[in-house]
Amino acid sequence: MLAARPPAHPPARPPARPPAHPRARARARHRSPGTMRAMHAIVNFILELDKLKAVTRKTKPVGLDRYENSAEHSWQIALLALSLAPHAPPGADLQRVALMLLVHDIGEIDTGDVLVYADHNPVQRQADEAAAVQRILGLLPAAQAQPLLDLWHEFDAATTPEARFAHAADRAMPVLLNLANQGQSWRENGISHARVVARIAEPIRAGCPALWQYLAQRLDEAQAQGWFGA
Amino acid sequence: MLAARPPAHPPARPPARPPAHPRARARARHRSPGTMRAMHAIVNFILELDKLKAVTRKTKPVGLDRYENSAEHSWQIALLALSLAPHAPPGADLQRVALMLLVHDIGEIDTGDVLVYADHNPVQRQADEAAAVQRILGLLPAAQAQPLLDLWHEFDAATTPEARFAHAADRAMPVLLNLANQGQSWRENGISHARVVARIAEPIRAGCPALWQYLAQRLDEAQAQGWFGA
Repeated sequence: MLAARPPAHPPARPPARPPAHPRARARARHRSPGTMRAMHAIVNFILELDKLKAVTRKTKPVGLDRYENSAEHSWQIALLALSLAPHAPPGADLQRVALMLLVHDIGEIDTGDVLVYADHNPVQRQADEAAAVQRILGLLPAAQAQPLLDLWHEFDAATTPEARFAHAADRAMPVLLNLANQGQSWRENGISHARVVARIAEPIRAGCPALWQYLAQRLDEAQAQGWFGA
Repeated sequence: MLAARPPAHPPARPPARPPAHPRARARARHRSPGTMRAMHAIVNFILELDKLKAVTRKTKPVGLDRYENSAEHSWQIALLALSLAPHAPPGADLQRVALMLLVHDIGEIDTGDVLVYADHNPVQRQADEAAAVQRILGLLPAAQAQPLLDLWHEFDAATTPEARFAHAADRAMPVLLNLANQGQSWRENGISHARVVARIAEPIRAGCPALWQYLAQRLDEAQAQGWFGA
């Protein structure tokens, strides 16, 4: 699906007397208005994505006195999913999982991050994020946008084993950071052990049962340590 | 290569009289010491990777008054590579390119980031990064570490079309940020137009000729604007 495709604008036919230096010829070809326009669209898209570095979450990287952002979070959970390979659903395509996780949060460029434990209208939020993703990926030529849009929708629908596994990694990562940070975001936001379990047990169990069993034990230990906020 | 494998520790045979509730049975199975140990290793690895969020680079995200870090940079260039699909080498596996870019900088956890224009001993640096990557991936069970190590070495060797294309994305991204930030890191570090071209033209041209042709023109425009530091 994501293999390279032939360029939409095929190279112009070489002039009758080509320039002496092959590089000059290549330059003349690639600087065609079509190629420059296509590149501009890609650059506009990647600079729009840059804004995800400014979307802050509620958890802090271990040992840092700042909140993490959704861009570095997306990088980390893609690698978490790859690292969890032996605990993934049999036959799952983990490369697709990783790509799904790279794009799953880009809608937050318009909507911002919402704490998973916060009370909000999930239907409205989902519609807002879908519109945002459509706008952002709409900056790309359709041939590049469509596979990324498909990945986002697959994650959003959470029906394939890959998407469920991706959700498990996404939900687990802030828990792992909190466990390493003595419950930092739970304490800051008044979140109880019961509330964490109520929100994350089912999606993590559905996507990666072994991960949930590990976390259930760690969360029990965290409760004994008094790392929750309520 | 990265498809899910069967767990190294097969689930224990159920006890003669299984617990009444299937969840309790599942919990007993997954909480086997082997599974908990395997999970601990993955969690140690992902928390070690967390340190890449603290490795700062010389470029700033557009509109932010801070330097970007190597984690969010890795996320962004993976998506840049996917977005450049029509300009990739014919038949290139862009999913592998994206994964390569997710791991390409993890050695910086030990070595820190070095400005591409800085004078340094590249052989020593490469050896240090390779040792760091070996240490960090060594936290994972071998079955998960090996494919990631292979990706890192493929990027490092820069001999496959995929690795060259990945290098092009990696080199291009700070240029794109500088072009959007009126040459911020070039001005801060006294970098001339000629020095930028000398360091990035060849690797970008080798991996993605159309991208270089686009950048050559943008760099000429930036020089006319006075966005270089020397």
